[in-house]
Amino acid sequence: MKRLLRTLGGEAVWPPPVWLMRQAGRYLPEYRAVRAGVKDFVALCTTPHLAAEVTLQPIRRYGFDAAILFSDILMLPWALGHGLEFKEGEGPVLPKLRDAAAVAALDPARVADRVEPIMETVRLVRAGLLTEGFGDTTLIGFAGAPFTVACYMVEGGGSKDFAAVRGMAYSQPEVFGRLMDVLTDASVEYLSAQVTAGAEALMLFDSWAGVLSPALFRKHCVAPAKRIVAALKARHPGIPLIGFPRLAGVMSRDYAATGVDGIGVDTGSDIAAIAAMLPPRMAVQGNLDPLALVAGGSALRDETMPILDAMRGRPFIFNLGHGIVPQTPPDHVSALLEMVRAG
Amino acid sequence: MKRLLRTLGGEAVWPPPVWLMRQAGRYLPEYRAVRAGVKDFVALCTTPHLAAEVTLQPIRRYGFDAAILFSDILMLPWALGHGLEFKEGEGPVLPKLRDAAAVAALDPARVADRVEPIMETVRLVRAGLLTEGFGDTTLIGFAGAPFTVACYMVEGGGSKDFAAVRGMAYSQPEVFGRLMDVLTDASVEYLSAQVTAGAEALMLFDSWAGVLSPALFRKHCVAPAKRIVAALKARHPGIPLIGFPRLAGVMSRDYAATGVDGIGVDTGSDIAAIAAMLPPRMAVQGNLDPLALVAGGSALRDETMPILDAMRGRPFIFNLGHGIVPQTPPDHVSALLEMVRAG
Repeated sequence: MKRLLRTLGGEAVWPPPVWLMRQAGRYLPEYRAVRAGVKDFVALCTTPHLAAEVTLQPIRRYGFDAAILFSDILMLPWALGHGLEFKEGEGPVLPKLRDAAAVAALDPARVADRVEPIMETVRLVRAGLLTEGFGDTTLIGFAGAPFTVACYMVEGGGSKDFAAVRGMAYSQPEVFGRLMDVLTDASVEYLSAQVTAGAEALMLFDSWAGVLSPALFRKHCVAPAKRIVAALKARHPGIPLIGFPRLAGVMSRDYAATGVDGIGVDTGSDIAAIAAMLPPRMAVQGNLDPLALVAGGSALRDETMPILDAMRGRPFIFNLGHGIVPQTPPDHVSALLEMVRAG
Repeated sequence: MKRLLRTLGGEAVWPPPVWLMRQAGRYLPEYRAVRAGVKDFVALCTTPHLAAEVTLQPIRRYGFDAAILFSDILMLPWALGHGLEFKEGEGPVLPKLRDAAAVAALDPARVADRVEPIMETVRLVRAGLLTEGFGDTTLIGFAGAPFTVACYMVEGGGSKDFAAVRGMAYSQPEVFGRLMDVLTDASVEYLSAQVTAGAEALMLFDSWAGVLSPALFRKHCVAPAKRIVAALKARHPGIPLIGFPRLAGVMSRDYAATGVDGIGVDTGSDIAAIAAMLPPRMAVQGNLDPLALVAGGSALRDETMPILDAMRGRPFIFNLGHGIVPQTPPDHVSALLEMVRAG
């Protein structure tokens, strides 16, 4: 079995499997070359041969243990008909969902058709990994977790404090609950289609889980993830899932009840302290600071070695604690891989 | 002894003392009236009778157990000669500190003179509390923690990810270390002057502590706070300090080694889980979501009661987990106080 899948199965594979969040991205010249030829980011995500190409680029360059589908967590609201635009330097811009009518306007029936190009990407990547001789590389599919997707839909994009979405959760609990239900059900269909198309593991990105109070975290992060995990494991027995409740901190323990096989840890947390709160066979993934990777040299070594030392002997996937940033020198990634592979 | 000071001394006072971060602020019509009459925010912070007036307003209205000096964490870099401007709707704007020359240009010798109006505010508030019959209200002085102040100085204001300051910490460790030393020493002088002027407890706001990796957190949040606490307790035996390492999560345990008497917990953390990591006589402060206070009603009750239930029997100060927001209806604060005071 592939090294990453063995790890998610509870085995302390060593040296640990390694991949990097946003490993297909602007820090790579070959990515920038492809990106320059397409109109916008949504076009790249929905043009299978190009999305597959950029997914495979970092595998060819570095031989990571996982390829992660090149897409965006906002492709699900896009597929639900909610609208999505990426403005250069501004990030995503969406209509602001604020009432029951906007929730009712979401159209789950159209999702399967609209995400078909993404499924084609999954098929192309899976085939490409085999053709190009990356037989030990696991293909990870993913979705944004319902709460994080709701954050962008309610705020209309990113936000400093996500006051609108938190306000809605408190003041319009029924409307917000319906939105979460629509997103949870749609996530199951979307992720299930990715497995059918060839994804061998799945990841749920809950980037803004940390902005919620503990009670709302349990309600809007833990409970939906639990439903998603149960539904996917019922349809696809044995499919492993990684949850990434970013900034969950001590709430990571609650998140373990979702039934995920692995939990991602963000940059700011002591990975050993988080791991100690989790079942011993649950895999932990993380959590190098992407800025240490930009710095390289002794800063990179000083940040990397304690993570390896702390995780030796438990199921562990080396990763960043946040996405790789565009200014990362590609040869720093090589230096990192050398360290990780030396264990 | 005052209820809040007894709590910081390790006593489980019940019902718990209560105050709210940013309790003097735009949600109060009497604050907006004063604010309308001054040129800018810095002018308000440096006009003692006005700053004292707004500090006292929420005490008159609600009888909080603490008055916190009305000022801003960026008044220290301002006093160091670094420059500071508040742009409406944009937040603070500062020159971007990026090199050794900019650190060398900071002028600690001028701080005492420039912060003198702030010390006059402290004296006026202390006298006002006595004159107006708030004999059990504790006056809290404060400063931004060195790392958080450095964040604004290096970034030139707020930031989505604080990449510049983290990058500087990794890539220019000597320059960044000097900056941290200057800020740490200046914080000691600044806080010490507040105690001399009448502050009865101190709080260190490390709002961006959570963006650091564990190793950098220990180096740039824990170590400076430890130096500040030790220096202040040497100069002012018995002066209690509250540290607020926001988003520290599991790292709050490390922060306890600073020697603070109380630790603030942010909105996203399970306060019971954080409290369980700390020495039993260390006070815990927090952590209601300000958005639940905006919502009021059952949402407010559902968020408040679990905090009270979890903290009963340990030294605890009821507070928000983040500053109160301008759209908070003032009568929701009254409703909250009724709940907290019913214990």
